[in-house]
Amino acid sequence: MKIAVLGTGVAGRTLAGSFTGRGHDVAIGTRDVDATLAISETDRIGNAPFSQWQGDNSDVRLMTFADAGAHGELVVNATAGGASLAALEAARADNLTGKVLVDVANALDFSQGMPPTLSVANTDSLAEQIQRAFPEAKVVKTLNTMNASVMVNPAGVPGDHDVFVAGEDADAKETVKGLLRELGWKDGNIVDLGGIRSARGMEMYLPLWLSLMAVYGQPSYNIKVVRA
Amino acid sequence: MKIAVLGTGVAGRTLAGSFTGRGHDVAIGTRDVDATLAISETDRIGNAPFSQWQGDNSDVRLMTFADAGAHGELVVNATAGGASLAALEAARADNLTGKVLVDVANALDFSQGMPPTLSVANTDSLAEQIQRAFPEAKVVKTLNTMNASVMVNPAGVPGDHDVFVAGEDADAKETVKGLLRELGWKDGNIVDLGGIRSARGMEMYLPLWLSLMAVYGQPSYNIKVVRA
Repeated sequence: MKIAVLGTGVAGRTLAGSFTGRGHDVAIGTRDVDATLAISETDRIGNAPFSQWQGDNSDVRLMTFADAGAHGELVVNATAGGASLAALEAARADNLTGKVLVDVANALDFSQGMPPTLSVANTDSLAEQIQRAFPEAKVVKTLNTMNASVMVNPAGVPGDHDVFVAGEDADAKETVKGLLRELGWKDGNIVDLGGIRSARGMEMYLPLWLSLMAVYGQPSYNIKVVRA
Repeated sequence: MKIAVLGTGVAGRTLAGSFTGRGHDVAIGTRDVDATLAISETDRIGNAPFSQWQGDNSDVRLMTFADAGAHGELVVNATAGGASLAALEAARADNLTGKVLVDVANALDFSQGMPPTLSVANTDSLAEQIQRAFPEAKVVKTLNTMNASVMVNPAGVPGDHDVFVAGEDADAKETVKGLLRELGWKDGNIVDLGGIRSARGMEMYLPLWLSLMAVYGQPSYNIKVVRA
């Protein structure tokens, strides 16, 4: 499938590399291709410059958001949550019409220091904002509740643990569940939470995730729902 | 130990009954004892009137918030989150001074219909509000991430699953961990998230819990953190 991954950060790179390795035709979208390629230093959390990553992942093409949006039959929003609506606007609404739009972003607000708060929460969610802004796209929230390394390699965390899915369009969710299975997620660990409003819970889980990160000192963990 | 449980709802009754069964001297606090005992109908979610419950749990005395606060060497806030600060005010700050104050409440706001939102979230939490309002109490957030039946009977949900603890006072958290062990929680399933700010994540988990409740149709579940 032709997939557009919007966002050149760790989540975008990791998903783009994984989808490419599974035979998909993947483009990564960015605001300014030249600016992205001109970055020569590791970022503040130690990630290599994009150009270095692309040297090892030459099958993944870097494009503008608009070109990536046109390329993808399915579009993944892996931008920083605070920049997501602008990135999707740049990808152009007409490029999103009728397509599955997989939202893996978290609206983290670092402006008040660490740990971050959320820039949208409680009475709304980023995924709902995106669905309202792009009503012709079929938004599916998923994968935002874990580190990128876990998204594409669930077996890297031992035992059963879960990935959540929320969205209004049943067919779009089936498409996304199929992609999740390709990434290694077992059917019994894909939990469909219903409509897009359930993205609130998925996004509001982030502060708990961040507290756990502080406790464990490493990001390779996830949660499993256990029930009677 | 002399324990005061503030709140006559399901969480308060369940904890009070469980602590009593384990040999503690428990009082339940309420705003108006006569009014609580005068209730003769089941509530909107099907719970029996308090007087009926107390007929089966006659070892648990019902008192005013102030009398319960004076009784308890340890105080549990199991009131509705929106009423917690007023209930604790009624229990009197001087009754809370130096004591462990276990906060199991969730600040659910039903005013906009179902599912509820939170009346405090993201940049603050109920537990932090309580700690600020009662600086001489040793607030420990715990148990709010699950149904009351799971709080006092973790073995009712099969396999390993976790309970979180957050608070500023290390000795208070040790006391609370001891109580959790009495309730059946294994050491390896008691996850200390650090200071009281981590209560934000514990409280903001509630919308995900509510989405899971809608999926499963029953409340006997909990989460387990799985890590590499």
